[in-house]
Amino acid sequence: MKKIAVILAGSGVFDGSEIHEATLTLYSISKNGANYEIFAPDIDQYHVLNHMGGVELPEKRNVLVESARIARGAVKKLSDFDPASYDALIIPGGFGVAKNLCTFAFDGADCSVNPDVEKALKGMKEVGKPIGALCISPVLLAKVFGNNVEVTIGQDEEAASAIEAVGGVHKKTKHGEVVIDEKNNLFTTPCYMLDATIAQVGEGAENLVKEMLKRM
Amino acid sequence: MKKIAVILAGSGVFDGSEIHEATLTLYSISKNGANYEIFAPDIDQYHVLNHMGGVELPEKRNVLVESARIARGAVKKLSDFDPASYDALIIPGGFGVAKNLCTFAFDGADCSVNPDVEKALKGMKEVGKPIGALCISPVLLAKVFGNNVEVTIGQDEEAASAIEAVGGVHKKTKHGEVVIDEKNNLFTTPCYMLDATIAQVGEGAENLVKEMLKRM
Repeated sequence: MKKIAVILAGSGVFDGSEIHEATLTLYSISKNGANYEIFAPDIDQYHVLNHMGGVELPEKRNVLVESARIARGAVKKLSDFDPASYDALIIPGGFGVAKNLCTFAFDGADCSVNPDVEKALKGMKEVGKPIGALCISPVLLAKVFGNNVEVTIGQDEEAASAIEAVGGVHKKTKHGEVVIDEKNNLFTTPCYMLDATIAQVGEGAENLVKEMLKRM
Repeated sequence: MKKIAVILAGSGVFDGSEIHEATLTLYSISKNGANYEIFAPDIDQYHVLNHMGGVELPEKRNVLVESARIARGAVKKLSDFDPASYDALIIPGGFGVAKNLCTFAFDGADCSVNPDVEKALKGMKEVGKPIGALCISPVLLAKVFGNNVEVTIGQDEEAASAIEAVGGVHKKTKHGEVVIDEKNNLFTTPCYMLDATIAQVGEGAENLVKEMLKRM
């Protein structure tokens, strides 16, 4: 049975991983006959937002600990990730990707990437295994790999410009569409980067997982 | 378009709503052509657990505020729930149901039920609208309605005994099966009360939503 590593960035769209995208990625993996293991970096979240209204709360939360909520406890430190043990890697979206896994939310194209995230991405690419990214996460692929990798974040002009600025090529997409960079084995789909229903997000996640499974 | 109210109990299996069950309920509603609105009581969680290992954290979190993570901000106070505005009601599972929405985790059959939850359930039943419950949530239906309502929590003997003790009738079920109490318009399915994969949980949620939609 194929085993896919999934990297989370916390739990909640505004300061962590987008919960629907994360859950529907796990669901698509399981439904299509594969297994998953979940990873997250052991770092503090950039901040904690009240998801009713977006006000910052005077709290600290840890990305690994909060990701465990989506993982039902079964989460591993990203620093322990070994590309040899997995057939593919997927990163769901959410602002936490752009705040905790890199600094894209603040620095755009000049963002820095968490070293464990960068190592995991480079490690998988070196051995030619498929990498998937949903929603805003494709900016990580463009930033880390550059070199005209082809990705999508849907239709958003600003994010698309940032992708081009770091050396990626942006392809516009609609609900459920997957951009496949065959040369680099990268798979991306827009999900909630478009104004989507949860059913459309599920369709995107499943299409992405199916395309990746074909190539494992 | 049919509109289904979903009651959450926080965000995370051990102290709130089970995230996969909640998300896959919303997904099934959307995928089958209906809409949802999300409600939660505006109360403190019973406690906050580190989902890596289960240790209690010295924090306070609010059930409504944490439920907003699953709801992407779009959550309403359960005290404002009006049965006239919805075609059905569903309560996903998670320990938060047994800790925040009632005291079943501590008091078993002698548990008390949050007044807003009780009012919402009784309000929907009075007007004959379908009520669904996943995982451990069927104990709420047995406790509030008694009167030999037929429900399932899967195979767990202790929970099944408590259901019988408060006047419900327990039906054993396997993955994906839905117990339908036609007389009382109640729909229950075991999900993670069994040792389930996320794909099996999704199957249960979808089967439940489809059966409910047939009767709206």
